[in-house]
Amino acid sequence: MDYQKRIKKLQKRLKRNKLDALLITQPENRRYLCGYTDGDHGITETSGVLLVPAGSEPIFMTDSRFTLQAKSEISVAKVEQYPRGLLFKLQELLPSIKIKNLGFESHYTLHSTAAKLKETGEKAGFTVHPVSDMIEKMRIIKDEGEIEAIRTSVQLNEQVFRQAYRQISEGMTELELAMLIENTMRKLGASKPSFDTIVASGTNSALPHAVPTTKKIKMGDMLTIDMGLVLNGYCSDMTRSFCYGDNSKKYKKIHRIVREAQLAAMKAVKAGVRGCEVDKAARKVIKKAGYGDYFGHALGHGVGLAVHEGPGVSPRATRKLKEGMIITIEPGIYIPGWGGIRLENMGVVRADGFEDFNSDTTQLDL
Amino acid sequence: MDYQKRIKKLQKRLKRNKLDALLITQPENRRYLCGYTDGDHGITETSGVLLVPAGSEPIFMTDSRFTLQAKSEISVAKVEQYPRGLLFKLQELLPSIKIKNLGFESHYTLHSTAAKLKETGEKAGFTVHPVSDMIEKMRIIKDEGEIEAIRTSVQLNEQVFRQAYRQISEGMTELELAMLIENTMRKLGASKPSFDTIVASGTNSALPHAVPTTKKIKMGDMLTIDMGLVLNGYCSDMTRSFCYGDNSKKYKKIHRIVREAQLAAMKAVKAGVRGCEVDKAARKVIKKAGYGDYFGHALGHGVGLAVHEGPGVSPRATRKLKEGMIITIEPGIYIPGWGGIRLENMGVVRADGFEDFNSDTTQLDL
Repeated sequence: MDYQKRIKKLQKRLKRNKLDALLITQPENRRYLCGYTDGDHGITETSGVLLVPAGSEPIFMTDSRFTLQAKSEISVAKVEQYPRGLLFKLQELLPSIKIKNLGFESHYTLHSTAAKLKETGEKAGFTVHPVSDMIEKMRIIKDEGEIEAIRTSVQLNEQVFRQAYRQISEGMTELELAMLIENTMRKLGASKPSFDTIVASGTNSALPHAVPTTKKIKMGDMLTIDMGLVLNGYCSDMTRSFCYGDNSKKYKKIHRIVREAQLAAMKAVKAGVRGCEVDKAARKVIKKAGYGDYFGHALGHGVGLAVHEGPGVSPRATRKLKEGMIITIEPGIYIPGWGGIRLENMGVVRADGFEDFNSDTTQLDL
Repeated sequence: MDYQKRIKKLQKRLKRNKLDALLITQPENRRYLCGYTDGDHGITETSGVLLVPAGSEPIFMTDSRFTLQAKSEISVAKVEQYPRGLLFKLQELLPSIKIKNLGFESHYTLHSTAAKLKETGEKAGFTVHPVSDMIEKMRIIKDEGEIEAIRTSVQLNEQVFRQAYRQISEGMTELELAMLIENTMRKLGASKPSFDTIVASGTNSALPHAVPTTKKIKMGDMLTIDMGLVLNGYCSDMTRSFCYGDNSKKYKKIHRIVREAQLAAMKAVKAGVRGCEVDKAARKVIKKAGYGDYFGHALGHGVGLAVHEGPGVSPRATRKLKEGMIITIEPGIYIPGWGGIRLENMGVVRADGFEDFNSDTTQLDL
């Protein structure tokens, strides 16, 4: 990954916004800019903060627990410790490198921390300015290195799915299957699931965000599995619906409608097309088949270092898709009391179309 | 748990602080007040927010995904949905129940959210006021129901340790042992580890916060395991150091010093004694033995719904301990290039002494 290039791009934006520096606290943004792989243990326990001045070398600040790792991973910034805490550090550091206007990530800084930062600035002679989405907007377009990393994450996710699929047996609970999937992810080299795995059987599958229960899977059950993993920091996200045992006629019919909607949406994707137009292509198929009221959520979302990020792919997404954006395409039909079917693939927006990263169509084409 | 009593106590504090209501966003505080068990998926994805007016019934607000669970768990508050988001909901709700001064948890509200909350207040006729630690101060003293829940959590943690201990074998990696421990926790009924399990072997154990690696455990290695679990919402936290195989003479000597320091600290605990005095009792033993420079961290911390909470037990902890506080006592000696030994027990402060919740002394008395 070309961190130097990303830093330079950010520095240009800082100058344009008349900021002398930006303090980066959001873990994915931090990783994006300097390659530091550690996450935070919640917002109250950071594993480090990156300061990017508009005109000089970035400085990564952390405590003694993370210093060795930071030094071994980060080449684009000096690594320094804050033995007396971040605020003391900034109080000394910022005047010495002539930072007068400091931006901070408003969407990943606690109100109480921002208040203390402001006080520190009053003592040390700098002012603080809330910034939103500056790095998120950079992250939305992926370079080829990132595209490759995401493709590999999707491929591993499919491999995990296939292994787990072969081990489904009658009487296994939804929770056991979810645990099996997550353990297999780790065994095959993923660092963790990118979100809590969904396994929903029978009528539970009518809930798009079902949580796995101790309900036992039995022959003939409909199943929806929504799963994703993190590999080298990059997320995957995939949903498969299928029957354990034989497909009923109704099941097959609805499954085909969902797949047709997915293919129609994929066909609609290319650079310059709006997210809402892609959403509409899928929704039209489902509506025409008479199930328009049973598809309540957005068609898709962006994926990258975070499993949910820009761009949106929904009826309200009026922005144009650009080359290098990664999106999911996940139409579904959910019938209360019967069950639900969702099919989710991921891929990259290209100048002339959609490049689907999922290759296994076993559960797609019934 | 007597949620009604807790709510009433909070309402008194609100009146004293001239607040008409408090908006509770911090997951442990929310659980403490109404019994809702779900956590958040990070600060950007809440699973619900509790509004406690100073003079009327609390209202728990969430989205459709969590409504059923909230209704089944919460008896102390009405459950309502915010289909258009929390801010819209507050804009309608607060004027209707005459809330003019709204407190919010400054230490668990994003700067950007607080800014939007303020804007909403300007439209709807209420002002917002940052509040810190109001509920944390209530949580620091545990009632007998909580003490019992924490004791049970510690006992299960010891049981997990014993099972895992028997399965340690030569060639197993630190990471494998950590996974074994965490899987055993779940198998025996814990909802999750209360923090990332530490397994440090050989010289790695010289780092108090070592992260498990793929280093293989071999005969004669020193091992430090720091582990805790969550059971019914309440955390445990325990550290054991021992040798895999025979103890060397030096190992035994230092282990005994650490244990002696731990026992001295336990003897110093009772209601009315300052945290720093307890810390000093342990530190004195280690200093006297000539290892004062090798014990760099605080002696202990409070534990409850969070694994790290008040009170502090450190050289700077000048506040007096009170009956019903739960604390850890965890002295350690860390010698770079050789290794480290830490022993951590947990228990409750009583009027006349310390009640140790750990009962298994196999790895303590060498």
